[in-house]
Amino acid sequence: MAERITPDWIGLDWGTSNLRGWALQGGQVRDTVQSCAGMGGLSRDGFEPALADMVAHWDVTPQTPILACGMVGSRQGWAEAPYRAVPCTPLEGTGAVAPTSDRFNLRILPGLRQTTPSDVMRGEETQIAGFLALNTDWDGVICLPGTHTKWVQISAGEVISFQTYMTGEMFALLSSQSVLRHSVSGDGWDDATFDFAVEEALGKPEKLAARLFAIRADDLLDGTSPAVGRARLSGLLIGAELAASKPYWLGTNIAIIGADAAAKPYARALQTQGAPATVTDAERMTLAGLTAAYRQIQDTL
Amino acid sequence: MAERITPDWIGLDWGTSNLRGWALQGGQVRDTVQSCAGMGGLSRDGFEPALADMVAHWDVTPQTPILACGMVGSRQGWAEAPYRAVPCTPLEGTGAVAPTSDRFNLRILPGLRQTTPSDVMRGEETQIAGFLALNTDWDGVICLPGTHTKWVQISAGEVISFQTYMTGEMFALLSSQSVLRHSVSGDGWDDATFDFAVEEALGKPEKLAARLFAIRADDLLDGTSPAVGRARLSGLLIGAELAASKPYWLGTNIAIIGADAAAKPYARALQTQGAPATVTDAERMTLAGLTAAYRQIQDTL
Repeated sequence: MAERITPDWIGLDWGTSNLRGWALQGGQVRDTVQSCAGMGGLSRDGFEPALADMVAHWDVTPQTPILACGMVGSRQGWAEAPYRAVPCTPLEGTGAVAPTSDRFNLRILPGLRQTTPSDVMRGEETQIAGFLALNTDWDGVICLPGTHTKWVQISAGEVISFQTYMTGEMFALLSSQSVLRHSVSGDGWDDATFDFAVEEALGKPEKLAARLFAIRADDLLDGTSPAVGRARLSGLLIGAELAASKPYWLGTNIAIIGADAAAKPYARALQTQGAPATVTDAERMTLAGLTAAYRQIQDTL
Repeated sequence: MAERITPDWIGLDWGTSNLRGWALQGGQVRDTVQSCAGMGGLSRDGFEPALADMVAHWDVTPQTPILACGMVGSRQGWAEAPYRAVPCTPLEGTGAVAPTSDRFNLRILPGLRQTTPSDVMRGEETQIAGFLALNTDWDGVICLPGTHTKWVQISAGEVISFQTYMTGEMFALLSSQSVLRHSVSGDGWDDATFDFAVEEALGKPEKLAARLFAIRADDLLDGTSPAVGRARLSGLLIGAELAASKPYWLGTNIAIIGADAAAKPYARALQTQGAPATVTDAERMTLAGLTAAYRQIQDTL
């Protein structure tokens, strides 16, 4: 039997659908565990048992520091961690909240909010903090693609403003539940179609609503392949997002924080607009952000 | 026991979700029946029994003429009725197809298709024919709000072009299945919010993608009521549709064919743009269209 790990501290990325935990010793990741015990499937008293399950094969005491980011800190989560108002640094470890627990020494990191226009984030602030910890003195715009893609303006280590786009959720709903599902099924893809659709949506974004149904009509009348339909739907939605977010990304540094599948279409679309982006891995940024937060508050834990 | 009705002919509006039938005698509706045996829930051999159920309490012989419009004529329907290419009159009864049936003398009316941009309709052509039968020499644009709203350009009794918008389906998906569902639940409504959202979307349609998530954020940060969220979502989506369809409706006659709940927001939004529309009832137009088709082909049945 392998030696049991005694972590110095534990980092948690606790989102709506998933929970990921890292056991860390002396700045090194010793083990990573993923579970599907996301916030969305847990009642208030389900969080402590879910965490106990996750850390069961590590030596964890009630004193072991645990830092969590993400939807676990929402109103429906374990304990509500208030949003901090931008402009501000992406992370302030001392603003973290501790849910009631006899078994765990846990802090949940706060999210960010913006008043005008109204916007919120939970979890992305930690990835941004990780990116800035690894890229000091970096100014520009960070795009975090996902279910709710964020565009975030960074200056002098602070989040100045941000904007959320429901592009990922709309793609998921339209491709799996609307009439378009018949015409975009499968995993197929066509780069040229994607590029053309991005260009079309950026050129005439007001026409988006008129173009979606044509994906179905093209299929019915011409038997267009699902790969073409899928790339076209993605290109139209991402193109519309780029049209709306143009004031963010035009003429500035751009970094994308995301998993490959989410980041690639964004990087490609920006490239076609003469706006190259640096792509970095979301999980790595989350861990770097949690580590930065741990360094800030380890003396108080 | 009431006398059994012996219809001269039967009209059917057979859509994806519902089936509605009228028993007609000498130009008068004697009975109306509605069932949930829509095309979407039936396999190819389920159509004949569904129709038999519907007409069971009428005296129907294998010779009784039956005319149907709608998705029953799609590839997944009882028998595929080809699309007729615009520009053309909305109805050509002699283009109707007869599915194989020993029990029923049925014809399914064809839909319409457009090549550039690709578009199709099934069922709306019958409502348009009904409207034109009741409003002879009418030129202008007809809006048919619904799951897939159509804007249709009419001149000299012909459909010149048309465009489909997935606004109704997007409202349904976003309001019931996206993160916005928490912030737009119930039946509440706020007219002033709707008007403002229409104006905002028409003024800057390229910003639609950026504005949807703010409905959720407004709720989280300010506790905005679901009635306001619901009216805002509807206003943004209809405003974006009006922005895209502006070349259709600007400076021309506008008629709306729809049920009250679907037609009212469109009429209101157009009114705020100085574009008043005549609102007519969808069911009445369907029956008028089926009647016009019956007159065209009754000698051949």
